[in-house]
Amino acid sequence: MATASPSQSVTLPSPLALDSGQELAHVEIAYETYGDLNADKSNAILICHALTGDQYVASTHPITGKPGWWEKMVGPSLPIDTERYHVICANVIGSCMGSTGPASDASDGAPYAMRFPVITIRDMTRGLVSLLDALGIEQLHAVVGGSMGGMQALSLAANWPERAARVLAIATTARHSAQNIAFHEVGRQAIMADPAWHDGNYYAADARPDNGLAVARMAAHITYLSEEGLTEKFGRRLQDRPDGTKGAKSFGFDADFQVESYLRYQGSGFTQRFDANSYLYITRAMDYFDLAEEHGGRLGDAFAGHAMGKGARFCLVSFDSDWLYPTAESRHIVHALNAAGAPVSFVELSAPFGHDSFLLDVPALDRVIKGFLDG
Amino acid sequence: MATASPSQSVTLPSPLALDSGQELAHVEIAYETYGDLNADKSNAILICHALTGDQYVASTHPITGKPGWWEKMVGPSLPIDTERYHVICANVIGSCMGSTGPASDASDGAPYAMRFPVITIRDMTRGLVSLLDALGIEQLHAVVGGSMGGMQALSLAANWPERAARVLAIATTARHSAQNIAFHEVGRQAIMADPAWHDGNYYAADARPDNGLAVARMAAHITYLSEEGLTEKFGRRLQDRPDGTKGAKSFGFDADFQVESYLRYQGSGFTQRFDANSYLYITRAMDYFDLAEEHGGRLGDAFAGHAMGKGARFCLVSFDSDWLYPTAESRHIVHALNAAGAPVSFVELSAPFGHDSFLLDVPALDRVIKGFLDG
Repeated sequence: MATASPSQSVTLPSPLALDSGQELAHVEIAYETYGDLNADKSNAILICHALTGDQYVASTHPITGKPGWWEKMVGPSLPIDTERYHVICANVIGSCMGSTGPASDASDGAPYAMRFPVITIRDMTRGLVSLLDALGIEQLHAVVGGSMGGMQALSLAANWPERAARVLAIATTARHSAQNIAFHEVGRQAIMADPAWHDGNYYAADARPDNGLAVARMAAHITYLSEEGLTEKFGRRLQDRPDGTKGAKSFGFDADFQVESYLRYQGSGFTQRFDANSYLYITRAMDYFDLAEEHGGRLGDAFAGHAMGKGARFCLVSFDSDWLYPTAESRHIVHALNAAGAPVSFVELSAPFGHDSFLLDVPALDRVIKGFLDG
Repeated sequence: MATASPSQSVTLPSPLALDSGQELAHVEIAYETYGDLNADKSNAILICHALTGDQYVASTHPITGKPGWWEKMVGPSLPIDTERYHVICANVIGSCMGSTGPASDASDGAPYAMRFPVITIRDMTRGLVSLLDALGIEQLHAVVGGSMGGMQALSLAANWPERAARVLAIATTARHSAQNIAFHEVGRQAIMADPAWHDGNYYAADARPDNGLAVARMAAHITYLSEEGLTEKFGRRLQDRPDGTKGAKSFGFDADFQVESYLRYQGSGFTQRFDANSYLYITRAMDYFDLAEEHGGRLGDAFAGHAMGKGARFCLVSFDSDWLYPTAESRHIVHALNAAGAPVSFVELSAPFGHDSFLLDVPALDRVIKGFLDG
């Protein structure tokens, strides 16, 4: 396990200008670091987290008590080697683990709730760049992220091309598809349909929109797993009944199938550690994400700052069983990088776990990451 | 448009014995017919409807006023030709369009609600067979169904092999997969999380669990469409704003994307015509469906009544873009029919609409259906 420095936080010295045209003042960014920063500050790796992730990449989550979400990847002698690199992972703005988000107090002392401005992936990345400024890190050894973390890595490369020497984007996409948006919209509607949501004003109430948030999580969770993975893990196997009956149908509405029980557990566990309004804002940011659109409509133009080998080296990784952001999306990015003349390596890995493969035990991913970072 | 006989209904003369071991008394089956029954009652085709379908296959829906759900397929000179065949389509038990379901009154005069027994696909089919008995139809010219309708067609073939001379099952499966169950469980949890659901006792209340039911429908609807179809139909196109602004992001939580607006419309429209408790019961029946399990674990044994050309002729149709019940599921059934020695033809059609292709404009499907029924 990596030794984390004590949890840290910075308040940005000036308001953050947002893509919406609004400004966000008094922005706090909470982050964790692992490993020592070297004298010339050239060994920093920024890890960007996914939709429901956080800064606890390799240290115990303060609410759940569970290990960090990428402990198998980040630590001494691990693929992202904290004896060699200074690893930074920050909670994105809009989230709920210490960085400014809808649950944070606005200037009037009450939580923003739905008064929080709608943000974009570029706004999140802008917050991360401001953190790097505050830390005095001019150029990262690498920016690394999977899923929404990969979107931030690409956004950093596109908008702040000089800030990272290496860009590693895993299981991600340059834009949300209609199907991606549709699944997120189901989740948002589930939250907003929960009467406890109260137009977002539930922070002082007895109840939170946990039911809606759990349903949102359940729907999303299906998209993180492959059909094959679900079949292998659960198939049509039945739960043992509370009365001791082994795997028989209840002819009722309890969780008969193991997959039902698993999903319910995923849904209810999630509500302990996540804020429903944050879920609304972050899914919105992901749905708005379209890197080409931000750069005049041609994705290649987004990477103009990396032309002719003057910028970063890129590595893209996809998984063959990922139907949320399938390989074609990574290939689309690779073609754009090729068009821009940026150096890029790309690999589609075979793994049975669907989109979540980047978080799970895929030894080939370890080798790709280590090879790219150390090379 | 087909001329429907006046809407009809029968009360079954004896209680229906259910797979759960319970009995359902005073069962009513509501149905529509089109075309004349010939003198020897040999020209009847039973069409089985899908999860949210009904008996109005080729006549106006009495609540929505919309055309029947298969009007392009059923009618004079159409592939299922009502000048030639007597078409019967009945509402399945558990549903809410006139056949006995959770909204029906139990013997105490109050709606069953969640006192309604959990039913199976075989129970639904048992109800349909009882209807055929009441109508004096010993053998159907054909039983036809898509999606859950296909499950009923297969269930009829497996359990009442002498009752249909032809079995046409479209875009269906012999068992629900873990992913199929998972999506249904999200829908059920969305309904049950709605405080207006009140453990199913909402029939006398002011409010119904429309919000939960709409979310359930939205999640399910995504599975009925292909990723390609959604991209083609909506892509990332934005809605025009209520204030007249053309396709600009609102930086809010209104339906910015056309696909969001479409899904919301699908969800809210559905609640006008469907009962939330019926949705619970019918999805449960589909999740329980495993034709092999019912017959000792080998799917081939389910079709033993059709061995050596003594039984029905089968036709299976799948669509290449259907990810809910993909072609592999139909092929699995075809292999089992082959193993049983039953005559079967099988075709995978190319269509961009995903699972819903069977309801949409796919001329090749028309030809397959007409050829199989008339041959």
